[in-house]
Amino acid sequence: MSFRARHLLGIDHLAPSEIVTLLDLAEEYVALNRRTVKHSDVLEGLTQINMFFENSTRTQSSFELAGKRLGADVMNMSMQNSSVKKGETLIDTALTLNAMQPDLLVVRHPNSGAVNLLAEKVKCAVINAGDGRHEHPTQALLDALTIRRAKGRLQRLTVAICGDIAHSRVARSNLILLGKMENRIRLIGPRTLMPSGVADFGCEIYEDMREGLKGADVVMMLRLQRERMDGGFIPSEREYFHRWGLDAEKLALAAPDAIVMHPGPMNRGVEIDGTIADDINRSVIQDQVEMGVAVRMAALDLLARNLRADRGRAAAGGVMV
Amino acid sequence: MSFRARHLLGIDHLAPSEIVTLLDLAEEYVALNRRTVKHSDVLEGLTQINMFFENSTRTQSSFELAGKRLGADVMNMSMQNSSVKKGETLIDTALTLNAMQPDLLVVRHPNSGAVNLLAEKVKCAVINAGDGRHEHPTQALLDALTIRRAKGRLQRLTVAICGDIAHSRVARSNLILLGKMENRIRLIGPRTLMPSGVADFGCEIYEDMREGLKGADVVMMLRLQRERMDGGFIPSEREYFHRWGLDAEKLALAAPDAIVMHPGPMNRGVEIDGTIADDINRSVIQDQVEMGVAVRMAALDLLARNLRADRGRAAAGGVMV
Amino acid sequence: MSFRARHLLGIDHLAPSEIVTLLDLAEEYVALNRRTVKHSDVLEGLTQINMFFENSTRTQSSFELAGKRLGADVMNMSMQNSSVKKGETLIDTALTLNAMQPDLLVVRHPNSGAVNLLAEKVKCAVINAGDGRHEHPTQALLDALTIRRAKGRLQRLTVAICGDIAHSRVARSNLILLGKMENRIRLIGPRTLMPSGVADFGCEIYEDMREGLKGADVVMMLRLQRERMDGGFIPSEREYFHRWGLDAEKLALAAPDAIVMHPGPMNRGVEIDGTIADDINRSVIQDQVEMGVAVRMAALDLLARNLRADRGRAAAGGVMV
Repeated sequence: MSFRARHLLGIDHLAPSEIVTLLDLAEEYVALNRRTVKHSDVLEGLTQINMFFENSTRTQSSFELAGKRLGADVMNMSMQNSSVKKGETLIDTALTLNAMQPDLLVVRHPNSGAVNLLAEKVKCAVINAGDGRHEHPTQALLDALTIRRAKGRLQRLTVAICGDIAHSRVARSNLILLGKMENRIRLIGPRTLMPSGVADFGCEIYEDMREGLKGADVVMMLRLQRERMDGGFIPSEREYFHRWGLDAEKLALAAPDAIVMHPGPMNRGVEIDGTIADDINRSVIQDQVEMGVAVRMAALDLLARNLRADRGRAAAGGVMV
Repeated sequence: MSFRARHLLGIDHLAPSEIVTLLDLAEEYVALNRRTVKHSDVLEGLTQINMFFENSTRTQSSFELAGKRLGADVMNMSMQNSSVKKGETLIDTALTLNAMQPDLLVVRHPNSGAVNLLAEKVKCAVINAGDGRHEHPTQALLDALTIRRAKGRLQRLTVAICGDIAHSRVARSNLILLGKMENRIRLIGPRTLMPSGVADFGCEIYEDMREGLKGADVVMMLRLQRERMDGGFIPSEREYFHRWGLDAEKLALAAPDAIVMHPGPMNRGVEIDGTIADDINRSVIQDQVEMGVAVRMAALDLLARNLRADRGRAAAGGVMV
Repeated sequence: MSFRARHLLGIDHLAPSEIVTLLDLAEEYVALNRRTVKHSDVLEGLTQINMFFENSTRTQSSFELAGKRLGADVMNMSMQNSSVKKGETLIDTALTLNAMQPDLLVVRHPNSGAVNLLAEKVKCAVINAGDGRHEHPTQALLDALTIRRAKGRLQRLTVAICGDIAHSRVARSNLILLGKMENRIRLIGPRTLMPSGVADFGCEIYEDMREGLKGADVVMMLRLQRERMDGGFIPSEREYFHRWGLDAEKLALAAPDAIVMHPGPMNRGVEIDGTIADDINRSVIQDQVEMGVAVRMAALDLLARNLRADRGRAAAGGVMV
């Protein structure tokens, strides 16, 4: 098996072969989840803690189901109302948590890099469930699995990512993953929402959506944070939809068999037309959610295998990990 | 087995024989729950999601225990702080949830009909845990089980339902269930809290509580929403208790062996006198809570059986359900 | 086995031999928790409910992990948003909960004595997870286990407890436990935060921290509630740290091998210097958290054994317990 990572903190650290290994295992969990009895015992007796410093019902639920279906003892910690508010530092929180001896720790945090910092302080496997504008690796992996299933491959595709690129960890993780897999990536969006330095990733930048969509195999829409609207960053919802919202007319410029993706939750009529979102011949938005649970099961499973191996080696060598 | 429903959305759709089947199975779970080891594996490997768009610690806990005691992987989703607030439509929420492949979905929603709408969009069994002023079927079923155990039958009883009938889904579901079972139903309450059209259900309407209670076998009190008080709807708490609160003097007019019910939580001294509530010879209020868990176990079990059978038939016929 | 308590409401009711029995069993769970597969089935099929009327992510998580690792069906009830707010009395809440037939009930409540009241109304084993200024027995037990492991014994030690003694149930439970074990206890803190009547416990009182720490084997710091600061009770944070905060200079007055404890979450720079907290040769703060899970597992296990025995006797004698 080629998956050797101890943590899943970002796509950046994964080799292409590790990504393929994870997606291949996720396929097995897609099959399991389609059964009525969808339970395995690969994490039996292990403790999984989901620590969300930022609310995300959707992502947390996906990780919770993933862990429970694999037989782990799963515990959610809602950190918004916690001792962090009582003045505890992130490092103290990490050390306290570590002393409860979790095996798998899933963390969402509003600050970029906070999850990496936390991972240095604990003795278990850590999954980044989104940190600030940095990374959201399981989102990129579930998108990759969705693409691979829909297009039959994860290479040599033209992928257009549209919307608020600058603030999006989803965009960032996807950019890295799809780049590693040798795809052609186009970033489309208002100049005010385009990060500096993306040219380093070797992708093309478009402000004109019609131009950017031409011949694209995959159209990946991003959620628009309404609070950024009308604040100088971007125009009104109506104007935004006119220029960067996905509708039938713009989609017609993409490849005839192009698929449409969205990480959810959607603002219908703002970044995407409802009819497109519901078109089962084009939209794979529901598939993304399904793949999300399977990808997270695969990530938990692989990290747990590595954890056991590490601890086994440490025990044999007399070193405490 | 005569229970054939795919969902439990309301009492309206259940045949009397289905009600009896469910209550009979619930009796077995009453016995199981009285043991120290109270665990079955009939839902082993199935995913149950409790989706509460409205806070209800009591009802959610009852469903959570029911699912866990049957071995399901149970997940609570508190939807008040969720993506619904981020502008997602109910249908998108339903589709997202469905993509996570639950087998059993328990939903509480503030809008009448929302649970039915949701049930049309998902491929699993749905239980309505209360939707607006519409239905709350498991409450009516647990009340029915409580009555059957206390009175030895569920037919030919005179049942008085007292209080805020107009806003009560508990009253509505009970009215339908008890009507199907050929009981005589009296509705008692202030004219401002009496819905129009109840005469169609063939029940008698009383404003005078003393008159309405005469000879009743079952006295079912409803919770008074304090926020409706002093707002024109109804008089002050003191005046309300004087006219429609259950006390010893009014209860003396009911049958000598009449039982007293309340769905909880109680406002002692508003709709019911504390002494009556605590009188173990008359009050079956704690039994209602106990029957609640058992009835929900029976409902989950029966729906899961039908789900398996449906999916089995679909698989045999090559149709995806 | 000498542990005979039906509930764990406080240290007050435990005999020294019961404390030792519990700590000895906790040692076994310390070993279990250090494995990757950390699961037992001693509570298989039993229902554990954690009822927190006051938020405490840390304590609730510790009890939740403890129950799950022992195989119980664990349910958290966040009572801050519950029917209690709808005007339900604590006794009605207790009766309702009891009707759901939990076997183990863990309760945190802001009022002293509330947990004892609740325990009288239910038919299961109750653990006090902190009630007002009264008791927090599992905290004292985890502190005792930490001390016993670090010092090799739990007797004849000089223990200094420093800070806001008056408002601290942690201090109170520790005082009782350490007193039962024949240790010498010193209470150190501002006069305004020193309770009256502590002299009855046979401990020494110091306002001068330097004097109080002299030769101490154990230095137990308490969390300072910031909301009590600058309100007449106590001086500013800076002044407080100067007089009662633990720093290297003050710690040098204690025994050369003195250990430093803190129940968490810490206010670094207020009641304790960060360098001391992080000094792995002196600080056992992380051990306390680890011992917390193990001690709670032992408490749940022992209470469940007694519950089974009680119910077995009752069944044999035809009495319902």
